Order: sequence, then structure tokens, then C-alpha cells
Amino acid sequence: MGSFKGHALPGSFFLVAGIWWTGKYSLWHATRRNKSIGSTRLAGRSLQRRLEIIENSVVLFFSLVGMLAEQFLADGPKLQLYNFAEKHWEDLMNWQHATMYLFFGLAATVSLVLHSTEAAPLALDRLMLAVAFFNEGFLFLYHLHGRSMLDVHVHQLLLYAVFGQAIAAFLEVFHRGNIILELLRCTLTILQGSWFWEIGFVLYPPSGPEWDLTDHSNMMFVTMCYSWHLAFAMLVVGVLYCTVSWSVLPSPQQKRDGSSWRPHISQYTDKSSLSLSDHVAA
Amino acid sequence: MGSFKGHALPGSFFLVAGIWWTGKYSLWHATRRNKSIGSTRLAGRSLQRRLEIIENSVVLFFSLVGMLAEQFLADGPKLQLYNFAEKHWEDLMNWQHATMYLFFGLAATVSLVLHSTEAAPLALDRLMLAVAFFNEGFLFLYHLHGRSMLDVHVHQLLLYAVFGQAIAAFLEVFHRGNIILELLRCTLTILQGSWFWEIGFVLYPPSGPEWDLTDHSNMMFVTMCYSWHLAFAMLVVGVLYCTVSWSVLPSPQQKRDGSSWRPHISQYTDKSSLSLSDHVAA
Amino acid sequence: MGSFKGHALPGSFFLVAGIWWTGKYSLWHATRRNKSIGSTRLAGRSLQRRLEIIENSVVLFFSLVGMLAEQFLADGPKLQLYNFAEKHWEDLMNWQHATMYLFFGLAATVSLVLHSTEAAPLALDRLMLAVAFFNEGFLFLYHLHGRSMLDVHVHQLLLYAVFGQAIAAFLEVFHRGNIILELLRCTLTILQGSWFWEIGFVLYPPSGPEWDLTDHSNMMFVTMCYSWHLAFAMLVVGVLYCTVSWSVLPSPQQKRDGSSWRPHISQYTDKSSLSLSDHVAA
Amino acid sequence: MGSFKGHALPGSFFLVAGIWWTGKYSLWHATRRNKSIGSTRLAGRSLQRRLEIIENSVVLFFSLVGMLAEQFLADGPKLQLYNFAEKHWEDLMNWQHATMYLFFGLAATVSLVLHSTEAAPLALDRLMLAVAFFNEGFLFLYHLHGRSMLDVHVHQLLLYAVFGQAIAAFLEVFHRGNIILELLRCTLTILQGSWFWEIGFVLYPPSGPEWDLTDHSNMMFVTMCYSWHLAFAMLVVGVLYCTVSWSVLPSPQQKRDGSSWRPHISQYTDKSSLSLSDHVAA
Repeated sequence: MGSFKGHALPGSFFLVAGIWWTGKYSLWHATRRNKSIGSTRLAGRSLQRRLEIIENSVVLFFSLVGMLAEQFLADGPKLQLYNFAEKHWEDLMNWQHATMYLFFGLAATVSLVLHSTEAAPLALDRLMLAVAFFNEGFLFLYHLHGRSMLDVHVHQLLLYAVFGQAIAAFLEVFHRGNIILELLRCTLTILQGSWFWEIGFVLYPPSGPEWDLTDHSNMMFVTMCYSWHLAFAMLVVGVLYCTVSWSVLPSPQQKRDGSSWRPHISQYTDKSSLSLSDHVAA
Repeated sequence: MGSFKGHALPGSFFLVAGIWWTGKYSLWHATRRNKSIGSTRLAGRSLQRRLEIIENSVVLFFSLVGMLAEQFLADGPKLQLYNFAEKHWEDLMNWQHATMYLFFGLAATVSLVLHSTEAAPLALDRLMLAVAFFNEGFLFLYHLHGRSMLDVHVHQLLLYAVFGQAIAAFLEVFHRGNIILELLRCTLTILQGSWFWEIGFVLYPPSGPEWDLTDHSNMMFVTMCYSWHLAFAMLVVGVLYCTVSWSVLPSPQQKRDGSSWRPHISQYTDKSSLSLSDHVAA
Repeated sequence: MGSFKGHALPGSFFLVAGIWWTGKYSLWHATRRNKSIGSTRLAGRSLQRRLEIIENSVVLFFSLVGMLAEQFLADGPKLQLYNFAEKHWEDLMNWQHATMYLFFGLAATVSLVLHSTEAAPLALDRLMLAVAFFNEGFLFLYHLHGRSMLDVHVHQLLLYAVFGQAIAAFLEVFHRGNIILELLRCTLTILQGSWFWEIGFVLYPPSGPEWDLTDHSNMMFVTMCYSWHLAFAMLVVGVLYCTVSWSVLPSPQQKRDGSSWRPHISQYTDKSSLSLSDHVAA
Repeated sequence: MGSFKGHALPGSFFLVAGIWWTGKYSLWHATRRNKSIGSTRLAGRSLQRRLEIIENSVVLFFSLVGMLAEQFLADGPKLQLYNFAEKHWEDLMNWQHATMYLFFGLAATVSLVLHSTEAAPLALDRLMLAVAFFNEGFLFLYHLHGRSMLDVHVHQLLLYAVFGQAIAAFLEVFHRGNIILELLRCTLTILQGSWFWEIGFVLYPPSGPEWDLTDHSNMMFVTMCYSWHLAFAMLVVGVLYCTVSWSVLPSPQQKRDGSSWRPHISQYTDKSSLSLSDHVAA
């Protein structure tokens, strides 16, 4: 993946995932706040379950495609791990990327099983997601040996988003359905996606002059640029959340005739939102 | 901001913010403990909401002023990011400081929206505050390359306060209205404010001789001095909290006729204080 | 233990422990979900208690054997700590390994006392386990001075599993009976076990050529290999959990006649599973 | 304090504090489990409050004595901070130690106020304790510049206990009265005390030959020795806890006639023990 396209591709995946999740969680949260509309609620749950199954099937599909692409495209190792003739490991980079995909594929598989059977507690899907992100960060951490300063730095910055996602997902094991943690994870996912694009532009500029990878002021700019990406991700999540909320919530007139209290109080009590998050009824 | 005034100014802002917050949280906590006085309570809530809106408007205003000042005053970059003629980044320091203000401005904007509409769970304002402090610490962390030993050290000490504030604010997402966490955050805010002043005195002494920035015993003194600033911040918060509590609480005679139990028991149960913190009723 | 056998032996112990725990926790979790079958439940609890006592007796026995073996086998220090004649410490490696066994022995002893008397809260056994794992990681951390790069790296990777186990066990003090944390700990235990075998194969290859301990691409391969061991451990735990669940749970027909709701709801509420974990009734 | 006595003295204080706390918390825990004996309970609470006041007065007294001793004994700085004649800081070590005492004094003062008035939530005393331990660790962290390897190492090991105490005390803010956290803190306090003695013996051997402070095998021995101190501290806490429990709990005969269930169930529910910890009634 040492190319512009090799960073733009995973970046796009994470961007799409982040935006999709923001929409999904905003929708469920808005639906939970409108409990009065009984019929929508039941429909919502069975819809929710079906959506989870579709989402995880898509993730699983792309994980498999990613693993196969890393192995068999152009200069892949074609499942050969060690070159006994020349006594060296074969394309370790491709193998490492395939390993990252493997963990996201595992997380999707477990989610599929959880949402289509009653095999295990639902919170397991968040643990698997946390493990997948942790594994991604873990492999990146030992991935940077011997590169130039700026190259190391832009990848280290990526780790803030990746480990942040792992921590947020792990906290969701204990606070499932907490909209704030969910939006935090969405923000970090979008941040990771847009930062992959930024890495592509910095290390493999598609047009214009090369960056000086050893200049310290470049490093300072890149650090600040990471903050801007974070602000941008927060903006995207904020706009999406508000759009979804306002299109789903009842109009202000409806809210004024007394039913407006329930959603409001539920804001303060994590407990209630905890157990209603995903499909309680099958 | 490489000047005495450049450190005294943000220091003063944080000092004022810390003292204001201490007063505010002490007042709400004292009011929550006097539940018997029903009329004050309702007044308190609508007052609380209005105060939040005023507070966040002020923060937003100063963030905007700060960003504009960093850009357009004296030697600012005037929105120019890259000097293509001389091929170097334009005033990265000013851009970094403007970025810090940006995040506090974002936090204030989100708080304004949360407290004037019912768009999202209130706890989001603490997450935004945590992100703003984290971003400040993050930018400072990569800000120190190539400076002299004592300069690096005084800025590193600042990070204890900044990341401490980020952690305390993040914990408040889950334990909203916990007076102990709130006072901890106030203490760290005052510590950050007074330490900014100390940095100004150490690096740009307005009078008297220069400090030897490479002397190890200066470094040891400065470390200890940080502890003294913490003790001072704790003292300020303690005195303010007691003053506010004693001026709001009913006199001992009133407390002795039976109603004194409720506030006492509520000390032990975080739950009750959790959901009453900010304006429940509009 | 500087030999292939010296790494395979503890590896096997951890593999067995991880598999045993997976089976045990899966069984208790499946039993808790079938509350309708009242008779099995009571039997289950007294069985549970007896199993804990047997398990901890076995652990205690092997800890003692381990300590004695480290001291008195072949080249052990035979309880001599300092060689006053030659003025050097006697076999510090063996003493360190014996210390690790000591802490697992202590944890087993405390567990034995907890499960056979009512002396202290049950959660203490998890704290003791956390301390035992922490102590193992702590000793390994200062164990690596002056070794070759790959040797240090494979042992550092082990620390992820060891400290992960310590953290998971510590969290169980507050979330006892949380099946997700339990399975996480099982996974990390199996990971530690299989990684001990891997260390043996890398540092003391029983057949074939030696590894180049200073080659960076070997290090990259080993890092990725750690991820594969983790995936393998997750697979083993997953298969075991499903096997146990499906052999214990009532058949789908039984589940369809109304009793299926209770286990399902209990998934969402940690509280209920919290207090039923180990023997509530003696 | 660069002497054997200078390490033995604080070591003894921490040993006494650890043993005292173990006894106190074991006693309250045992009393809480015997709720049936109504009369003892009321006595217990007022006794509890009085004990807290006495304990904190003693801590405050010794903190003041410690601060005065560091300032005015033999070679103290006598409140002089900077020697303007010779242009150097005066006895920074003594000032640092006095600062450590100051924070323990502050914690004791706040505790005194909390337990004799109803000014603030009780949990504040644990936060103050956490801050005092954190401050001790913070000052030690920057205390070690330019010393020999073994000297640095024995002090770094101390930090595990000190920061461990800070974390345990901070967790107690949220889980007050959790006997497991309390005993963990007691264990770490005893560990800190006995390790201060060990530091004295290693760096300033009162008899026998000097230690070679640059020998790596000495460092490995000392690391292992720390584990032994931890095991010793756990043993002391365990023996004390059992002694107190068995002397306070009703005899087995009494337990068999039905009342034995209540204490047993309370083991599993942190909630109940949470709010009864310290004096609920004044």
C-alpha cells in the first residue's frame, strides 16, 4: 500500500463506515426518545436487527475481498509466507494488512452470529470491534521502524484515532447504547478515514512538489492539521446527528402537549437507554 | 505568545474560569442539598439554564476574539498559511494557538445548543470540554521540540493540569453532577491559570535577573513550585466552596429540626445527585 | 528455563488453564440463562463451589511443585540465595520463576479459603489473580536487560497478554460474572500459553536452522504472528463457548414456548448476572 | 534524608498507617456484616466518627512535626528558600520533603472538617488522600536525576506502591466502602513502608559491606525482593483481617440459625456496603 491509492482506499472505507454509523446511531437514539409512537418502535427493532445483519455482511464481504486483494493482486505474496530459495519473508506488508482485515472480518462474523441467533450477550460485538481496532493499532505500532521522521509522525498521529476507537468500543461493552460514546467512536472513525487521505497527500503527493520529510516545521504543521481533521469530523457528525434528529422527532407543537418530558428525562438516565439499545425483542 | 503578557493573558482567563466554575458548582450543590425550599428550587433551575447560556456565550465570544487576535494582531499570519515566495509555513505558533481557541469555541457552541434546545444529551458538553482540553494538551505535547531544558520542563508540568482536566471532564460524562469531580476540575483549571503566570515569570522575567534555563536545581525548584501551585489552587477552591455553602445553607437551628437528614444522606448516594445536576425542567 | 522445554511447560499450563476456564465460565453462563430448570440450578451451585475448591487445590499443588522444581532440580539454587564464597547471587532466574509461582500459589490459597469459608467477599479471588498476573508481568519487565533484539521483542509481546489478564481480572472485581470479561481473560490466557510455545520455537528451535535474532524482518513477522495467535485463541474460546452453550441450552422447540425471553433479557442486564456468578448458597 | 534513619522513619510511619487502616477497615466491614446486633451498630457509628477525628488529628500533628523538623533540625533551610549571597537554592531536598508532608497535612485537615461538620461529601477525603499520594509520587519522579543506577531503580520501584495507592484511593471516591479496594490500599501502604526500610538497608547499610550500585544482578535481585515485600504485605493484611473478622463475628453456632444469610448476600452487592461505610448517622 505504499502509494496514494493504497491510503485513499482504506480512508474511504473508514469515512463511509463513520458516516453510516453516525446516521444509524442518531436514528436509533431519536427513535428511543419518541417512545410514544408505539407502532414505529416495534417496526424499528426488527428493522434494527435486519440492518445489523446487512451491515455486518457488507463488512465481512469487504474484509474477504481485502484479504484476497492483498494476497493475489499484482505484487502480492500469493499465500507464500517464506521464500526458502532466497531466505527472506515474502511481502510482510501485505501479510500485515491482510491480518488487519482478518480481525475486522472476525468482528463482523461474531456480530452476524450474535444478531441472528441468541448465542451470546450482544456486548460481545463491541469487544470484538475493540479487539479489531486494537490489533490494527498494535500492528501499526511496530510498522514504523527505520522510516523518515515525518512518515513516522503521520502514522503515530493515526494511532490516537485507532486506539481511541478501541477504548471507546471497549467502554461501550459496559455502557451499551450510550449515544455519547457512540458518537465519539463515529467521530474517531471519520477522523481515521480523513487522516488516511491526508497521509496519502503528504507521503505520495499526486500532484505538486514532494514534502520535505525531515523538516521540523512540516511536522508542526501536520500536528495542527490533525486537530483540524478532528474538528472537521466533529462537524460532520454534528450536522448528521442534527439532521437525523430533526427529521425523525415530532414537530415542536406535538412536543409541547406534555409528551415532551419523557425524552428529556431519559437524557439523564443512562440506565434506561442501556437496555433498549439494540433489538431486545427478536 | 513568546512574552510575559502572552502567558499572563491565558493564565488570567483560566484563573477566572476556575473561580467562576467553583462558585457555580458550589452554588448548585448547596441548592440541591436544600430541597425543602421548593420555590428556590424552581427558580434555581431556570436561573441555572440562563447562566449556562450566558457563560457559554462569553466563552464563545472570547474564543472568537482570541482567534482573530492571533491572526490579525501585530505579527499574525493574517490567514495566510504558507508563504509560497519564501517556501515556509507562516507563523505556525499563532495558527496553533488559534486552533486551541477553535476547540474551546466549538465546545461553547455545542453547550449553547444543548442548553437552549433539547437536541442531544446534556453530557455531550462535558465530552466537548474534554476534547478541547485534550486538544490543547496534544498541541502542547508536540510544541516543545528543540527548546532548552527548563522551558520544556515548565510546559510539560502544564500538561499534568491540562490532561487532568480532560480526564476529569470525560469522567463527568458518566458521573454528571458529581461535586467531587467538578471541584477537581475547578482546581486543575486554577492550577493551569496560575501556572501560566509562573511560566511567564520564569521564562520572561518582567524584572530582575534571567533564570539559568539549564541548571538542574532550578528544575527541581520548579517541580516543587508546581506542587505549591496545586496546594494554592486547592485552598482557593476550598475557601470558595465553604463560603458559598455557608451563605446558602439554612442556619444550624433550621437544620436541627429534622430536615437535616436529607442532605446528609444524599452525600452517600451519587445516583440522586446525578440526575438533578443541571436544568431538568426548562 | 533457557530451553525449549522450559518454555513449553509453562505454555502448556496456561493453555490448559485457559481452556478449562473457558469451559467453566461457558457452563455457568449457560446454566444461569436456563433458570427455569430449578433443580439443576441448586445442584449447579454446590457443584460450582466444589469445582472451585478442586481447581484451586490443583493450582496450589502445581505452584508448590513448580517452586520446589525451580529450587532443587538439576541446576537450582537449593534455597541458597547468595554465594558468599564467590560473592554473587545464586541463580536469580530460578528465584524469579519461583517468585512468580509463589504469587499464583497465594492466589489459589486465598481462593480456597474464600470458597470454603465465608471469610471475605468473593471478589477478592479476582484481585489476587490480578496481582499474580501483574507480578508476573512486573518481573518479566525487568528480566530482559542485555538480551538480543528479537529475544527482548518476543518477551515484550508476552507482556500484552500478561498485563491484559491483570487488567481483565481487576475489572472483574467490579463486574463479577460478566461473561464478556471472563471470556476475554480466557482468550488472553490461551494467548499467553500458545505464545510461550512460540517463544520456545523461535529462541530454541528444536529442529531446523537458528533464527537470526537481529534481523528486523524477523521482528515484523513475529509481531504479525502474535496477532495470529490472538485470532487462534479467540477461535478456540469461541468454538468451546458455542459447544458448551448448545449442549446445555434447551432445544429450540422448548425455547419457543415463552421461556426464551428470560435468558434473552438477562443479556442486557449485567446486574442480574452479577450476583449469581459463583455459589450464592453454600 | 540521605541516611538510614531518614528512610527508616517514614517507613515506620507508613507501616503503622497501613496496619492501623487494615484493622480499622476490617473492623467496620465485620460490623457491617453483623447487622442483627442493633445496639453495637449505633455505638459503632459514633465510635467510627470519633476514631476518624482522632486518626486525622494524629496525621495532622505528625505532618506539622515533619514539616518543622525538615525546616529547623540540624541542616535544615530554616524557611530560607534562596541563598542570595551564594546564588543557589537552599536545601531543596528538605523543602521537597516538607511539601510532601504539607499535602498529607492538607488531606488530614479536610478529613477533620468533613467528619466533624457536614460541609461536603465524605468521598472528598479519599480524593485528598489520592492527591497527597499522587503529589508524593510526582515529586519522587523528578527527584532521581543523576543518581547511580540502583539508587534510581529502588526509588522507581517505590513509585509502583505510591501511584498504586493514589489510584486505589481515587477509585474509592466512586466505590466508597468497598473492602477490597480498602485492603488493596492497606497492602500498598505497608509495601511502601517496608520498602522504605529496604531502601535504607540497600543505600545506607547500617552494618556490613556497601552494595555495588552499578551491578546489574543486584538490580535483578532488588526487583524480585520488591515482589517478596508485596507478598509479605499481603500476608500481614490477610492475617490481620482474619483475626479481626473472627474476633468480631458471631460464633458458628449463632450463624447457623438463619441469620447467616444476610452477611453472605451482602458480599455480592457492592451497593449496600457503599452507603453504610462511614458514619451515616452523626
